[in-house]
Amino acid sequence: MIMNYCNNCGSKIKFGEVPGESLPRYFCDQCHTIHYENPNMIVGCLPRWGDRVLLCKRAIEPRKDKWTLPAGFLENGENVEDGALRETLEEANADVDIVRLFSVYSLPHVGQVYLMFLADLRNLNFSTGLESSDVRLFTKNQIPWDQIAFTAIKFTLEKFFDSTSQTNGEAILGGYTKY
Amino acid sequence: MIMNYCNNCGSKIKFGEVPGESLPRYFCDQCHTIHYENPNMIVGCLPRWGDRVLLCKRAIEPRKDKWTLPAGFLENGENVEDGALRETLEEANADVDIVRLFSVYSLPHVGQVYLMFLADLRNLNFSTGLESSDVRLFTKNQIPWDQIAFTAIKFTLEKFFDSTSQTNGEAILGGYTKY
Repeated sequence: MIMNYCNNCGSKIKFGEVPGESLPRYFCDQCHTIHYENPNMIVGCLPRWGDRVLLCKRAIEPRKDKWTLPAGFLENGENVEDGALRETLEEANADVDIVRLFSVYSLPHVGQVYLMFLADLRNLNFSTGLESSDVRLFTKNQIPWDQIAFTAIKFTLEKFFDSTSQTNGEAILGGYTKY
Repeated sequence: MIMNYCNNCGSKIKFGEVPGESLPRYFCDQCHTIHYENPNMIVGCLPRWGDRVLLCKRAIEPRKDKWTLPAGFLENGENVEDGALRETLEEANADVDIVRLFSVYSLPHVGQVYLMFLADLRNLNFSTGLESSDVRLFTKNQIPWDQIAFTAIKFTLEKFFDSTSQTNGEAILGGYTKY
């Protein structure tokens, strides 16, 4: 995140040690605001219909024309399930029922965490949303595996179709970088 | 979050409709930065030892002297499991092994989401950290139920001890406000 000026008082902000903080922080020595930077959540669904899953072809950058599951940034004022349902509606006009949390995938190098929910499609009345140029159902073998937009989405799809990684319902934890 | 000045260029920022955005946003019409506000993640552990769980008495505000599970804000650059382990070490000097994700609790009115991991204590060499004045193990009946610091923590403890809400390993979803 860009951090040059204090968004409270407009003064130039500094970066460094702050009393009571274990990590260096952006801070304002005029109004004493500490500017925390925290990771963002991306919430979405893995909508299934029989042995097929719904994917969206991205109409926008980044990764235009690649395929993804419907997902996006959680907004202030919504809970994680509602955010996942909203994104599924926005990107695929798809009505789903959430079954359970399926995967949690951390991307610490970019400050993102994906929360992906397994969901059942209520019907086949889905269609492209503003950010999608195509929406389709794919079996495991039909999925364009080399055309998946994001690492976390590929991870989620692989785990879904890999019977050896099926858990008893536990959310599958993953991440791009492990320490 | 306080949003008066652009933290990129220092100009006064505005709030309202922005082309391409479905929600009103804070934006700067000098440097054209959109200032997104997103919920924060709080990550922590539910450390268990036999039929007891570890709680920390808070040494700091908010909710000083109330009891809580070790948890805190996820930092940039760490994955969710590492954040939960770090908080458990910082607040209780406790070494644990994460078993699985136990609960996901949304607080949309304050823009927070808790991710709490069930964890096994490796040993009983825990002690107070900087933010705790006491750290103890409690059975279900010993827990000071009316002295729990946060709603999400109380929810997590209740679900853990309530045999009727035990799932087959699924993360339990909850939230302070449902829409």
